[in-house]
Amino acid sequence: MTIPAPYLVFLGDVQDPGYAKTAYGLAQWSHNLCVAQSRYPGCPIDLDLVDMDIKQAATAGVKTLVIGVAPVGGAIQDSWLPTLLEAIEAGLNIAAGLHNKLNEHTELVAAAKQHGVSLIDVRTPPSKLPIATGKKRSGRRLLTVGTDCAVGKKYAALAISKGLNEHNINTTFRATGQTGIMIAGSGIPIDAVVSDFIAGAAEQLSPDNEPEHWDVIEGQGSLFHPAYAGVSLGLLHGSQPDALVLCHDPSRQHLLGWPDYPVPDLNACISRAESLAALTNPNVRCIGICINTSQYGREQAEQLLQEIQSTTKLPCVDPLATGVEPIIDKLSSIYQLSELSAT
Amino acid sequence: MTIPAPYLVFLGDVQDPGYAKTAYGLAQWSHNLCVAQSRYPGCPIDLDLVDMDIKQAATAGVKTLVIGVAPVGGAIQDSWLPTLLEAIEAGLNIAAGLHNKLNEHTELVAAAKQHGVSLIDVRTPPSKLPIATGKKRSGRRLLTVGTDCAVGKKYAALAISKGLNEHNINTTFRATGQTGIMIAGSGIPIDAVVSDFIAGAAEQLSPDNEPEHWDVIEGQGSLFHPAYAGVSLGLLHGSQPDALVLCHDPSRQHLLGWPDYPVPDLNACISRAESLAALTNPNVRCIGICINTSQYGREQAEQLLQEIQSTTKLPCVDPLATGVEPIIDKLSSIYQLSELSAT
Repeated sequence: MTIPAPYLVFLGDVQDPGYAKTAYGLAQWSHNLCVAQSRYPGCPIDLDLVDMDIKQAATAGVKTLVIGVAPVGGAIQDSWLPTLLEAIEAGLNIAAGLHNKLNEHTELVAAAKQHGVSLIDVRTPPSKLPIATGKKRSGRRLLTVGTDCAVGKKYAALAISKGLNEHNINTTFRATGQTGIMIAGSGIPIDAVVSDFIAGAAEQLSPDNEPEHWDVIEGQGSLFHPAYAGVSLGLLHGSQPDALVLCHDPSRQHLLGWPDYPVPDLNACISRAESLAALTNPNVRCIGICINTSQYGREQAEQLLQEIQSTTKLPCVDPLATGVEPIIDKLSSIYQLSELSAT
Repeated sequence: MTIPAPYLVFLGDVQDPGYAKTAYGLAQWSHNLCVAQSRYPGCPIDLDLVDMDIKQAATAGVKTLVIGVAPVGGAIQDSWLPTLLEAIEAGLNIAAGLHNKLNEHTELVAAAKQHGVSLIDVRTPPSKLPIATGKKRSGRRLLTVGTDCAVGKKYAALAISKGLNEHNINTTFRATGQTGIMIAGSGIPIDAVVSDFIAGAAEQLSPDNEPEHWDVIEGQGSLFHPAYAGVSLGLLHGSQPDALVLCHDPSRQHLLGWPDYPVPDLNACISRAESLAALTNPNVRCIGICINTSQYGREQAEQLLQEIQSTTKLPCVDPLATGVEPIIDKLSSIYQLSELSAT
């Protein structure tokens, strides 16, 4: 699944920034792919992109209108239809990660067919996926894993990927969830894959590559999650990671939405992830910890990072607050990464 | 998914018993659900059931024609169509676990609609599955796990389920694969479920029950399998087993079809399965081993069972050759099973 760039980020009439997470993610992580934003009068969200209507966007070379908002219920709003149809008529593809699929909306499907453009539902996995072979692939891989869902695995992977590229280490971010796929412009929504193909999908997502190349793969769920551990394990096995980075939110009292399940101990998480991952890559090791300290004051946050660093004996950062440089350093020291010449 | 009984087992024109595994499974494990067999002239397979044509079967009260054969490619054969259409016209449902779905065959779909019968594709999971809650359910559960695929997990579960019922312990076999579903008449094909719902499907498969009731759940894959461990883990977590039985084929040199992957050590399998299962049921324990000794002579087989019993310190049987009584005994001694009064 690939989303043709560049994008016009569609915000519609959404009022609450909480419904525009995909749009903010795109503006932060894929600014260079985003030509402009499109919003209705009264929409207060501003991605710091130029405003364009469909005609201007088409003239500016935009290839895809990306729906960057998800209202409650995740449906395509009737009020958006005139804009979406105008975009299709102007030759733009439409991409969305909504619960209601673009490809099940008869009016959009008919228009897309007539004008020869694609409706890209990023929550829909490829129709032909392989069964995992377990065969060792060339190139290096890092996977973010978590103590729970929604602890910053995507953010950490994006930050590490960016950091490695800034050090001229050839790196690709590999997306496994809808927002990540929007940001990367490609990927596989791993939790929507039929269960026999989880590991196979992960293998396809990070294929053979140059020996010095790194794939930084967005993790999903947690090996300690009563609903999603199967997804996490299939992704772990198919990814064959050399390096793991564990993500954690220390403010959480129990697994989000599962009050009977405590947040697992960090060292237990590291040891379980390493021992399970060793099946497909015996050289796997956890090389750092990413903590979301947004619920803490600065001093307390620093103390938390130091404590966890001391307990786990691994570099411990908050990607948003402190950056990921210590993790890049650790990677470099272990794998003797040689920065590409800038020429 | 439920298959209305009793059945007419359809064998068609298949020549090789290897393509009739489902039919043999039905005849062995669900003999009481099978009224008759239907085969074309020259078909050498005999399930030791009376032969009937469609008219006779309908008169005898058959509710479903079950396709018990899977030719190479898994397609519905054109030569079968007259019989299948006649069955539909006579008011019989059709059930199949073929690769090509009954519900994608336009002629069968039209006829079924006209005559108000169901086409039951047992490889198709329910369309609405829940996300797992991880909440403890009432009743007891046993899950068969394996060192690999195709090591006898279904057979072991069926044999243990039968053994418990023979001891008047109220037990239900829960099917997770296509042949198991045919045999049980219901179940969920767990490897066809979307990955976010694996554990939720397993929870739905073995719901709350009487405190003394046992669900014996058919396992899938292996926690040490590079392609399928995610399915195995989701099934393990959703099943919340109290007891595990490990299934193993000692003649296998490596995982079937994955020559780079050795068959895991039995004690490593037990300890990994127990530690992962403890997430949703801390009281889980492995209580026995089922070995497929069909590749060995009688003496060597007996020696193998003794060796494995001594290594694992658990009752070790070949369900086909020796029966599963020692495992039933172990279960009884641990869980103090009280046999239901026969009245």
